[in-house]
Amino acid sequence: METIFSKIIRGDISAYKILEDDRFLAFLDVFPLVEGHTLVIPKEPVDYIFDLAPETLADLHKFAQKVALAVGKAIPCKKVGVAVVGLEVPHAHIHLVPINQVADMNFGNPKQKFEAAQMEEIAQRIRQEL
Amino acid sequence: METIFSKIIRGDISAYKILEDDRFLAFLDVFPLVEGHTLVIPKEPVDYIFDLAPETLADLHKFAQKVALAVGKAIPCKKVGVAVVGLEVPHAHIHLVPINQVADMNFGNPKQKFEAAQMEEIAQRIRQEL
Repeated sequence: METIFSKIIRGDISAYKILEDDRFLAFLDVFPLVEGHTLVIPKEPVDYIFDLAPETLADLHKFAQKVALAVGKAIPCKKVGVAVVGLEVPHAHIHLVPINQVADMNFGNPKQKFEAAQMEEIAQRIRQEL
Repeated sequence: METIFSKIIRGDISAYKILEDDRFLAFLDVFPLVEGHTLVIPKEPVDYIFDLAPETLADLHKFAQKVALAVGKAIPCKKVGVAVVGLEVPHAHIHLVPINQVADMNFGNPKQKFEAAQMEEIAQRIRQEL
């Protein structure tokens, strides 16, 4: 299904990209719960993450691990939490959320808003840790 | 580190087991957010999920996928959400949460309590879908 993520993958919409290969893409969530909140997606337009082929799911998580380790170095936090909700954009995506307390992962929390220059600086800081 | 999950892995504490192999174990969360809330853990006692070797992380997620697909068949829900928080029990664990709305994944929600017979019935229902 065509979603905003398809447009980001094609480059029709710009994104603060962190890491990309031929099958996967990581970029900053523009509605972040916290600074450094990153999305990791397969380029394959599958809605439900568990509909991915097992090997693709496995490779997606290995890709996400590289990104999460960089996020954890770039952003002060206790851990990088992981969430897949899947009830909003119908294209599978993993949230990587730098957290200091369980409540930081609550998707009902108000979203943060950073200026473009700040978002680019955050992305750059994470990319430097890859 | 020795945790309650080490005791469950060794069988010193019983659990409503869903699936087990030599490296991974899935069992019902005894403090579920919703009916069918399941935990998937590596038997290796690693605290932070991203400290797992990439291949182990990949295999853990393939194991979790089998479990999640069964949970989704057994429990009426829109999707099975995924969360790794990691600030409570210091042994990596993936939450699989059958959800109908984003708020079902809020770890601040009051936990459900099911009687032992209900928990066993839920576990049985999920196992039958494996």
